[in-house]
Amino acid sequence: MNYKIALEEAHQRIKKHIHQTPVLTSNSINEIAGAELFFKCENLQRAGAFKIRGACNAMLKLSQAQRENGVITHSSGNMAQAVSLAAKTLGIKAYIVMPNNAPKVKQNAVKSYGGEITLVEPTMEAREAHTQIIIEKTGASFIHPSNDLNVILGQGTAAMELLNIHNDLDVVITPVGGGGLLAGSALAVEAYGNNCKIMAGEPLAVDDAYRSLHSGKIETNLTSNTIADGLRTNLGDINFPIIQRLVDQIIRVEEQEIRQALKLILERMNILVEPSCAVPLAAIIKEKAQFKNLKIGVILSGGNIDLNRIPEFIIS
Amino acid sequence: MNYKIALEEAHQRIKKHIHQTPVLTSNSINEIAGAELFFKCENLQRAGAFKIRGACNAMLKLSQAQRENGVITHSSGNMAQAVSLAAKTLGIKAYIVMPNNAPKVKQNAVKSYGGEITLVEPTMEAREAHTQIIIEKTGASFIHPSNDLNVILGQGTAAMELLNIHNDLDVVITPVGGGGLLAGSALAVEAYGNNCKIMAGEPLAVDDAYRSLHSGKIETNLTSNTIADGLRTNLGDINFPIIQRLVDQIIRVEEQEIRQALKLILERMNILVEPSCAVPLAAIIKEKAQFKNLKIGVILSGGNIDLNRIPEFIIS
Repeated sequence: MNYKIALEEAHQRIKKHIHQTPVLTSNSINEIAGAELFFKCENLQRAGAFKIRGACNAMLKLSQAQRENGVITHSSGNMAQAVSLAAKTLGIKAYIVMPNNAPKVKQNAVKSYGGEITLVEPTMEAREAHTQIIIEKTGASFIHPSNDLNVILGQGTAAMELLNIHNDLDVVITPVGGGGLLAGSALAVEAYGNNCKIMAGEPLAVDDAYRSLHSGKIETNLTSNTIADGLRTNLGDINFPIIQRLVDQIIRVEEQEIRQALKLILERMNILVEPSCAVPLAAIIKEKAQFKNLKIGVILSGGNIDLNRIPEFIIS
Repeated sequence: MNYKIALEEAHQRIKKHIHQTPVLTSNSINEIAGAELFFKCENLQRAGAFKIRGACNAMLKLSQAQRENGVITHSSGNMAQAVSLAAKTLGIKAYIVMPNNAPKVKQNAVKSYGGEITLVEPTMEAREAHTQIIIEKTGASFIHPSNDLNVILGQGTAAMELLNIHNDLDVVITPVGGGGLLAGSALAVEAYGNNCKIMAGEPLAVDDAYRSLHSGKIETNLTSNTIADGLRTNLGDINFPIIQRLVDQIIRVEEQEIRQALKLILERMNILVEPSCAVPLAAIIKEKAQFKNLKIGVILSGGNIDLNRIPEFIIS
């Protein structure tokens, strides 16, 4: 597959349904990081995260007959909103399986987009089992949040847009949870970068991707003890080979480092991002020496933060 | 004076020192408002507010001899940060007189930009008196936060940038406090709009501008009881005649309406704005009928909100 053409086709397919999000810079964060950072603001994307890109791309590849049976996904939040909103836009019924500890603000957003929620125990097993039951009952098409090539290509269009404006980036860095954004961004960096590396930041508490890259097989997490609630999931068999082939490095960060980076983004940039979204900046600051004076593209993945929990999230 | 040329010259003068801020839209806020809103995001401006525009324009008009004695302003926050940052950028010493109840986050930002703060009682008299003392001692040039034509023209460049992209707006609306942003935006709408009206939103609790427009003379506030702390000041003799000549309407809003609009912007747009900044959206929603289906440019004035107070600000 020619991924450059596939990314371009995905972008053409979805562009009227998504925002071309702005790229912001902050002198004060550049000073702190000792590098030149270009933040691609997917927190300002429709439904508040990059995930609408992948959701739209996957749904626009369904047949009319498939669309009539609806779509289904399981997600702790952002993908749930993205699938609901994309489905609403295209006039498709959306079934959403969510862990029962998913932030209220994300549950409410799904409802406001017309998604039909089923709450389940917060384990991958429960999510998958209930998804299967609904598929058997309705014939809905499953949109995997991260392990689907059309989803991966859709997610990659954010880094592609960034590289189309700033084609001299030395590094693009994303958070890594399920691996869809990282794999898509990696394909975009390969296709559109010039000597550009692709890296990821990951919470130490859920460092399955870091361990997978080192062991050569998909590892899982034994705990979910991180404020970066979007990054608790594991890689999949479609995105992992892409990540293995292209990703230069995964940098692990402590919870305290995530909190500090989150506070920096909120205070210095005046944008709302969720804790997961602060992980790449935490990684850059932690590894300052290797990033010194580089031009770095940072994918700010999402902004669906519970406003009432901001003071708690930024306590250092 | 040809204000169109004056605005263009101001923009040329300041543009390398400021961000060309993005214009964001939100489908869900459009649905709520029943109109098409284009948010000019000065909360994403350098130092977190439009005020850097006016500060830069005024300072760039000083002579070298004047610059050597420094600059001074008094401000509850945003102008203090803007003058400090603009002065730092141009290598000028900045003296900042702030009311002692100014938000801590704003005081810290001034310090981080190298501004020398003098804290005074939170009255206009105390601010002006202490400013005078420092001017006599240092010879610093006073940069008025709102009642100076160079400041007004600088502030007007935000609406000018917006109208250069969206020249079919029916209305541009700003908050009104000291009147600099409103007067500057009014000049920009006159110069660059096509049958475009200029309006303002104002907290009912500090409705001096509304009353001034109706009485024909500059009115003052007897209370300062609003969460929109940037809008407590009064109009001045330079901006008031411009406002009188050009402003179509000032819409007053209740505190509760400001809180609801603030929550909408934070939740639906994922950007941080200060309470003052939510006043125009509150006005549009309050007067839905008259704005129905119009294209409205909303100047989001600033984003310097105390993160720890967000839950308190959005309680309804």
